[in-house]
Amino acid sequence: MKLKIAVLPGDGIGPEVTNQAIKALNAIADAFDHEFIYKDALVGAVAIDETGNPLPPETIAVCEAADAILFGSIGDPKYDNNPDAKVRPEQGLLALRKTMGLYTNIRPVKAYETLLEKSPLKTEFIKDVDFTIYRELTGGIYFGKKNLSEDGKTASDLCEYSDYEIERIAHHAFKAAQKRKNKLTLVDKANVLESSRLWRRVVTEVAKSYSDVTLEFLFVDNAAMQMILNPKQFDVILTENMFGDIISDEGSVIGGSIGLLASASIGDNSALFEPIHGSYPQAKGQNIANPIASILSAAMLLEQFNLVDEANLVRQAVEKSLELKVSTPDLNKENSFSTTRVGDFIAELILNNE
Amino acid sequence: MKLKIAVLPGDGIGPEVTNQAIKALNAIADAFDHEFIYKDALVGAVAIDETGNPLPPETIAVCEAADAILFGSIGDPKYDNNPDAKVRPEQGLLALRKTMGLYTNIRPVKAYETLLEKSPLKTEFIKDVDFTIYRELTGGIYFGKKNLSEDGKTASDLCEYSDYEIERIAHHAFKAAQKRKNKLTLVDKANVLESSRLWRRVVTEVAKSYSDVTLEFLFVDNAAMQMILNPKQFDVILTENMFGDIISDEGSVIGGSIGLLASASIGDNSALFEPIHGSYPQAKGQNIANPIASILSAAMLLEQFNLVDEANLVRQAVEKSLELKVSTPDLNKENSFSTTRVGDFIAELILNNE
Ligand SMILES: [Mg+2]
Ligand SMILES: [Mg+2]
Repeated sequence: MKLKIAVLPGDGIGPEVTNQAIKALNAIADAFDHEFIYKDALVGAVAIDETGNPLPPETIAVCEAADAILFGSIGDPKYDNNPDAKVRPEQGLLALRKTMGLYTNIRPVKAYETLLEKSPLKTEFIKDVDFTIYRELTGGIYFGKKNLSEDGKTASDLCEYSDYEIERIAHHAFKAAQKRKNKLTLVDKANVLESSRLWRRVVTEVAKSYSDVTLEFLFVDNAAMQMILNPKQFDVILTENMFGDIISDEGSVIGGSIGLLASASIGDNSALFEPIHGSYPQAKGQNIANPIASILSAAMLLEQFNLVDEANLVRQAVEKSLELKVSTPDLNKENSFSTTRVGDFIAELILNNE
Repeated sequence: MKLKIAVLPGDGIGPEVTNQAIKALNAIADAFDHEFIYKDALVGAVAIDETGNPLPPETIAVCEAADAILFGSIGDPKYDNNPDAKVRPEQGLLALRKTMGLYTNIRPVKAYETLLEKSPLKTEFIKDVDFTIYRELTGGIYFGKKNLSEDGKTASDLCEYSDYEIERIAHHAFKAAQKRKNKLTLVDKANVLESSRLWRRVVTEVAKSYSDVTLEFLFVDNAAMQMILNPKQFDVILTENMFGDIISDEGSVIGGSIGLLASASIGDNSALFEPIHGSYPQAKGQNIANPIASILSAAMLLEQFNLVDEANLVRQAVEKSLELKVSTPDLNKENSFSTTRVGDFIAELILNNE
């Protein structure tokens, strides 16, 4: 397969970890005889520094011409600490999601056997956890009409959804469930919210096309409890934007290793893959950042193009590196390896295991 | 002090556990020479059965004449499983909150040393946790304008707040912080929501009257993570209705003993105290239900009227009973005590410790 990949390393540790993901992709290309063509583009603080714009038009053009976007991370303290900054690095990612129509955010959560000790949850609660959250990313209250009364005393935000916004992500989520454990949990607040009742109706309708998938419903407040009490019960979670923001961030910490979590944001014509961790500017250039989340985001990229064996091989190599403790200092204080060494090791495992 | 207390035992295990709370209150009355006058009233399924109304007018009259309301629990499977039921037991509580203007919900979360093993969190994460959540209860998106388009394809809910709704609960929360560890964390999503920005402005203004309290801000998605990663950091959490629903339910499970959690819902002229657990109909009449949440809700009642020594004595008695494992089967499988025996034991401890 030939794939054009836009590479947007961004700020902080973004470039370093993205480089390791590319090593893994190159190993896959070698092993499976694929052709991956990379094109770099600027985003975030580095883009502001060079062009004044966190998402320059050239970057959009590169992304539009690509099959997929490999994203690093953005954010720089020199903008965070300046309340007068007119443009902020983070706007680059928000604008990119909007421009490319990336309406489905995917966040897998997996408890790695070798890292159970790092989880805040007791082992019996977190062991064998393996689920993925499908969060609607471009609708709901975050994008609804905002209002502040003229006297400044009353403020409001509108949470609005239309059936097509729910349908399109629901199809993605059901298809994912078919490839996993055939269970989908819709998280909503249908006992109170009209928009949640629409979600329930539409998702129930879409479910008819996926009779092999069991559909369950869970109120968001209960979901916040179940994420702690029994996260093993989940396979695919589907939810609206704000509930997904809360639940997926909650889910990201139960495994105890946020540096390992990847994500995808997909639309009808584009797909972006990134680690969920931030730009971690303190570690920039020190060759200590954990590249695994970025490498796992490359695995999600492969899976998006139905390169399932390839994606699994990347994941196996990552797990092997964890078992062998070939890890950066965040996971292995005593006998740690550098970012590049971990990247090389995983790429070698891919080539040798193929 | 003379207090008129409306007693609304409700359904399921409500009457049994409420009786134990009354034993504790009577012990306090004896020990401190107070006079508590109880008046019973119907609410929930028992009220529907007798009057057709989950909140009969006589019950409202009893509550309005009282200084405080001691509430049990409501809910009965015969209504839950009937989709055609026009009235539901739960409407009784919602209507009561609204009628009595109970706009502040208070949910303390405390990790009991003797129960650390029951927590889903590892001991180092949950030990010494002791915070309380102030959730706005009568505004926000749960009560905002709902809309469903005529074609049924678009639905919306409005999240609206006015300054006075925020001010009045903020004062309660800051006063609570002054009696605790002098820290208040406002949970919002002010980076995205206009209503959250209003919360921030109003709370920042109110904070000026409480210079001994440190005010911090936390986005709700981050709060959902911090509740797991470092719940010890919290003292008083203040938040709007829906965020409070999610965060307080999440908080309720980290201690591992939901049967122990009490809550209060207060307004300007009334205050209601109840366990957060449900009516648990399977256990009804078996004398096995854990009465501690109800007894601790009586302690919150005492504190509401500045009977601080009295409230602390109830809490000490509860902790003593836990230490001595004089507990119902949910906490002590091997050598358990009945609901009434635990209630008697705690009342005796109160009388003997005074
Ligand atoms: Mg978030
Ligand atoms: Mg709730």
